[in-house]
Amino acid sequence: MSKLLVVGTMAYDAIETPFGKTEKTLGGSASYIALAASHFDVEIGVVSVVGEDFEQQHFDLLSSKGVDLSGVEIVSGGKTFFWSGRYHNDMNSRDTLVTELNTLADFSPKVPENFKEAEVLLLGNLHPAIQISVLEQMNKRPNLVILDTMNYWIEHTPGQLETVLGQIDAIAINDEEARQLSGEYSLVKAAQKIQEKGPRFVIIKKGEHGALLFQKDEVFFAPALPLEEVFDPTGAGDTFAGGLAGYVAASRHLSFDRLKNGLIHGANLASFCVEKLGTERMESLEKSEVKNRLQAFKDLTHFTVELD
Amino acid sequence: MSKLLVVGTMAYDAIETPFGKTEKTLGGSASYIALAASHFDVEIGVVSVVGEDFEQQHFDLLSSKGVDLSGVEIVSGGKTFFWSGRYHNDMNSRDTLVTELNTLADFSPKVPENFKEAEVLLLGNLHPAIQISVLEQMNKRPNLVILDTMNYWIEHTPGQLETVLGQIDAIAINDEEARQLSGEYSLVKAAQKIQEKGPRFVIIKKGEHGALLFQKDEVFFAPALPLEEVFDPTGAGDTFAGGLAGYVAASRHLSFDRLKNGLIHGANLASFCVEKLGTERMESLEKSEVKNRLQAFKDLTHFTVELD
Repeated sequence: MSKLLVVGTMAYDAIETPFGKTEKTLGGSASYIALAASHFDVEIGVVSVVGEDFEQQHFDLLSSKGVDLSGVEIVSGGKTFFWSGRYHNDMNSRDTLVTELNTLADFSPKVPENFKEAEVLLLGNLHPAIQISVLEQMNKRPNLVILDTMNYWIEHTPGQLETVLGQIDAIAINDEEARQLSGEYSLVKAAQKIQEKGPRFVIIKKGEHGALLFQKDEVFFAPALPLEEVFDPTGAGDTFAGGLAGYVAASRHLSFDRLKNGLIHGANLASFCVEKLGTERMESLEKSEVKNRLQAFKDLTHFTVELD
Repeated sequence: MSKLLVVGTMAYDAIETPFGKTEKTLGGSASYIALAASHFDVEIGVVSVVGEDFEQQHFDLLSSKGVDLSGVEIVSGGKTFFWSGRYHNDMNSRDTLVTELNTLADFSPKVPENFKEAEVLLLGNLHPAIQISVLEQMNKRPNLVILDTMNYWIEHTPGQLETVLGQIDAIAINDEEARQLSGEYSLVKAAQKIQEKGPRFVIIKKGEHGALLFQKDEVFFAPALPLEEVFDPTGAGDTFAGGLAGYVAASRHLSFDRLKNGLIHGANLASFCVEKLGTERMESLEKSEVKNRLQAFKDLTHFTVELD
C-alpha cells in the first residue's frame, strides 16, 4: 500500500456560524486532511504537535480511521494550538477572533522512520522553514509533494517560500493567495507565473466556486457541489487537499488525468465537510454516501455537445 | 427553420476598462443576443427601438448575420438608448456613469407578423409590462419563453414581474438577482423558490464563475472558460443567453439535456465576447473558432472517475 505523509496542524477550534456555534471542536489542517484521505486505500502518517490537553478521544478517532499518529509530538505541560473564528452571513468571509499558537510556536517536526519513504507528501500550511525541514528528513524524494501556504508566509517569508516552491510538484492555494504570490489578477496568468517558480501542477481553490488545475497549457475545472445549506466551511480546503492527496497516493500513478480525478474526489469530500460543524460530518461519513455523490458530480458537469 | 424572437435593447455604449475605452460602440441586450444566436441554424427576429442617430452600418452588421430587423422601430427625431460605464480593476464590478433612456422611455414593442408564431421567445431585461405586451401579441404560445430581468424591476414592479414569471418557462438572471428575487442566499434554495413562481427552468449566471441550471432535483453547471485576459465583460451575460436560446431554438427540442448543451454553447460564445471591447469580437467570430473552443470546454470539465 502507498504511504501518504501529512504535515500540518492539529488544533482545537471555536467556531461561530449563522447556524450554530461550538466552544471547542477538533480542528487543524492535518486532522481534516487525514479524515479525508482515509477514504482511500493508503497508509496515512501525520506529523504534528499537540499539548497535554489534547483528548484521547481525538487520538482514538484518527486511529480508528487507520491514521498513524506516531509522528505527533505531545508537549508535556503544553497547550494545543487554538483558533477561534466567526463566519459572516454569506459564509464566504470570516473574522479570526483568537489565534493561540501554543505548542505550535516551537514545532520541530520529526518524520517517523516508517514514513521517510512515503510516496506522497502533503505539506500543510506552516512556516516554510518547517516545510523544508520535513523535505530534508525524507530518505527518498516522494513521487508527489503537494504544498499549501497562505498570505502570511507570502508576505513575511518570501525567500524561504521560494526555496520550498523550487522543491515541490504541486501547490494547492486559494485564488487570493495565487494572485498575491504571482502578482497577477488573471488566474490563468497567475498559474503560469507560479509554475515558473517550481511546481508542475498549480491547483487554485475558489471555495464555493470550485477549483482549477493547471499544467502548462492544460486546465481542468472541478466545481463545488451546489448545496442547500453550508453549515460551516471550516476545513473544506484541507478536506479538498486531503481527498486529492489520498486519491493520487492510492492510485500510484502521477498524471494530469489522475490529478483531475483527485480534484473531483477532493471536491466531493469537501461538499460533505461543510454540512456540519467542524469535523463532525467527516467522522461519520460512509463509503456509499461518497460514491453516490460522485455520481452527482458527474451529472453536474457532463454534457454531450456534438462537435460535428 | 425554427424562429427565435428577441425583445431587448439596441444601444450605444461608452465603455471604459483598465485595458481600453470607447466613446461609442454598438450595445444593448438585443444586439449581443442576436449576434450570439446567429451562430445557430435559426431565423432571428429582433423587436426593439432606436433613434434617428442609429447608424446604417449597425443595421447592416446585424442584417449580414441574417437577423430580421423589421421589428425595430426607428423614432424620427429620437436618440438611441445610451449607456456609459467604467469597470474596476477586478472587472467584476462596474460603475454606471450615464444612462440615457431616450427612445427607450416610450418603447411600445410591435411583434412583426412573421414572428408571431416563433418557437422560442427571449424577453430581454425590460419593464415587465413591456414583456407582458409581447407575450400577448404572440399568435401561439412559444415552446420556450426565456426571461431576463434585473434588480430594478424586482424592487419597483414586483407585482407585474410576478405576472410575467407565471407565464414563462425559463429565467436567466445573475446570482445577486436570484437572491433578491427569492430572499434566499443559497442558490439551490433560491432556484427552488423561483421555480415556485412559474419558470420550470432556472438559470443562474455567476459571471466568471460560470452558470447553473436547475429543474426540480436536477442541477447542471457550465463553467466559464478561464481566460488569460478579460478585456471587456459588457454583453457577456446577453451573449450567454443568446447562445443558449439560439441553440435550443435550432435543436427544436426542449429537455433538460438540451438546455444543458445550451448553457455550454452560451458559455462558449460568452468567452469570446469578453476578449475585445463591445461587440467587436462577436462581429468577426468564425465557426471554426467556436468549434475549437467547445472542445476546450469538454477538456475543462470531463473526467473519468470510476464509480465502482
